[in-house]
Amino acid sequence: MQIAYQGEPGAFSEAASRLVKPDAEMLPCKAFEDVFAAVAAGTADAGVLPIENSIGGSIHRNFDLLVEHELPIVGELEVPVVHHLLALPGRTLADVKRIYSHPQALAQCDRFLRTLTGVEIIATYDTAGSAKMIAEQRLEDAAAIASARAAEVFGLQPLKSSIQDYVNNTTRFIVISKTPISSAPPDKTSIAFALSNEPGALFKALSVFALRGIDLTKLESRPIPDRKWEYLFYVDLAAACDDVPCTRALAHLAEFAPMVRVLGCYPSYKPAARRNAVADPFEILA
Amino acid sequence: MQIAYQGEPGAFSEAASRLVKPDAEMLPCKAFEDVFAAVAAGTADAGVLPIENSIGGSIHRNFDLLVEHELPIVGELEVPVVHHLLALPGRTLADVKRIYSHPQALAQCDRFLRTLTGVEIIATYDTAGSAKMIAEQRLEDAAAIASARAAEVFGLQPLKSSIQDYVNNTTRFIVISKTPISSAPPDKTSIAFALSNEPGALFKALSVFALRGIDLTKLESRPIPDRKWEYLFYVDLAAACDDVPCTRALAHLAEFAPMVRVLGCYPSYKPAARRNAVADPFEILA
Repeated sequence: MQIAYQGEPGAFSEAASRLVKPDAEMLPCKAFEDVFAAVAAGTADAGVLPIENSIGGSIHRNFDLLVEHELPIVGELEVPVVHHLLALPGRTLADVKRIYSHPQALAQCDRFLRTLTGVEIIATYDTAGSAKMIAEQRLEDAAAIASARAAEVFGLQPLKSSIQDYVNNTTRFIVISKTPISSAPPDKTSIAFALSNEPGALFKALSVFALRGIDLTKLESRPIPDRKWEYLFYVDLAAACDDVPCTRALAHLAEFAPMVRVLGCYPSYKPAARRNAVADPFEILA
Repeated sequence: MQIAYQGEPGAFSEAASRLVKPDAEMLPCKAFEDVFAAVAAGTADAGVLPIENSIGGSIHRNFDLLVEHELPIVGELEVPVVHHLLALPGRTLADVKRIYSHPQALAQCDRFLRTLTGVEIIATYDTAGSAKMIAEQRLEDAAAIASARAAEVFGLQPLKSSIQDYVNNTTRFIVISKTPISSAPPDKTSIAFALSNEPGALFKALSVFALRGIDLTKLESRPIPDRKWEYLFYVDLAAACDDVPCTRALAHLAEFAPMVRVLGCYPSYKPAARRNAVADPFEILA
């Protein structure tokens, strides 16, 4: 089995991919688009993509890409995010003049970064990529904010561990694949829908779920590019799409929504219950 | 009058600031945070901030900053976004080996960029800043995607004009200030609220507006950092906050929402009606 993810080895997406299938062959991709392309072309059996972080919010690009492609969501999992300040072996915090990382990671370690003086903070496009750059270019006066796995992969050492502001920092990942990767029963449905631009339209749309007691765990809106200030809505439902109330709610929504699409109906995996687990979550669920 | 905005001269935020008050003194700031700080400290009388783009969606950082600060929204305006490919005078498209711009601008010109071959596309943190870099470092084989105003400010020439994918590309800006900057009557209210994490909570919240016939023009959710998968909701209402139905709806919402805050009650300015106007929009409204 091959799993595609965005980023360098050591990225949080790689950690999520390993939780899906520890012995899968990992296929690092440059951009989220490349993960979709690899799964669409069959180069990878599955793709693992971050969809939301509990501090930074939605990763909007992946919502857009889900609608642009026809690849269903077949699973979901949460990965705790623990950031470390990494440098070349033998360096100390006093040596650090520049710190590199992704803007989201920098924002998530804001309190720690504010305690430093005379250090330049530089935004890059990748946490693990920043660690790689420091290792490859032997940057003696620089550090990266990245995962413990990135330290291991690129031979760096932590100058300070667990530097994120909030202990609950978690990223939710989705798995896309042409075929189901788990035999566990689905308990979650992701949909996208458009609405006519008229007063009360969203209220009416949410009523089809609320009046049937179906809980929404997430609501996101994204602009429709060629229609100014009109939106596509993304909703996660805490129900399987073939539960009778859910089937009826979706049919009800389709009565008045110009577009309704089920993006996936899948089992969700909550690692909170078994925080130190290393086994295949989908294997456990199955 | 002094207006603070984020970016270099030539940024779209500067264009928006000039529409608010053409003869104001402009105060370019490095980050959105600095715009809030300048207005809070009284260094600037007003701050102009992008809040949403019709293609890219919300500028989430500014939603977070509105709640972190106590500075009210006093106005809103829309600015058409027209991107150009800019280079040093005398250069041609064939000379260009690298193109620099903000990731949102690159995404908005995707169709044009895909027609090019052998050109490296490099993401930066600023459209006007990319133009500035090319001018200052005399980069002969590089181009920037930025505004016509950036070309003027930094002495660059357009290799190709209006390269954005969609003609309707528009950014909505808000104005923050301790004092009203227009005597026009308010027609819009922005609020933020938290909800208890229980099924149907958002449906109930939207009902207070829908059942009173108050239209929502925007709904955005942002995570509450120390409470995993709980959200703060941001809603724009097409009503003044002191209209009786709106006052009653907000009181109704406060009956069950743990937090409700009015972020501003202000006149909106729609430049579509007078696309080529150069005068002060708030003066016209007043």
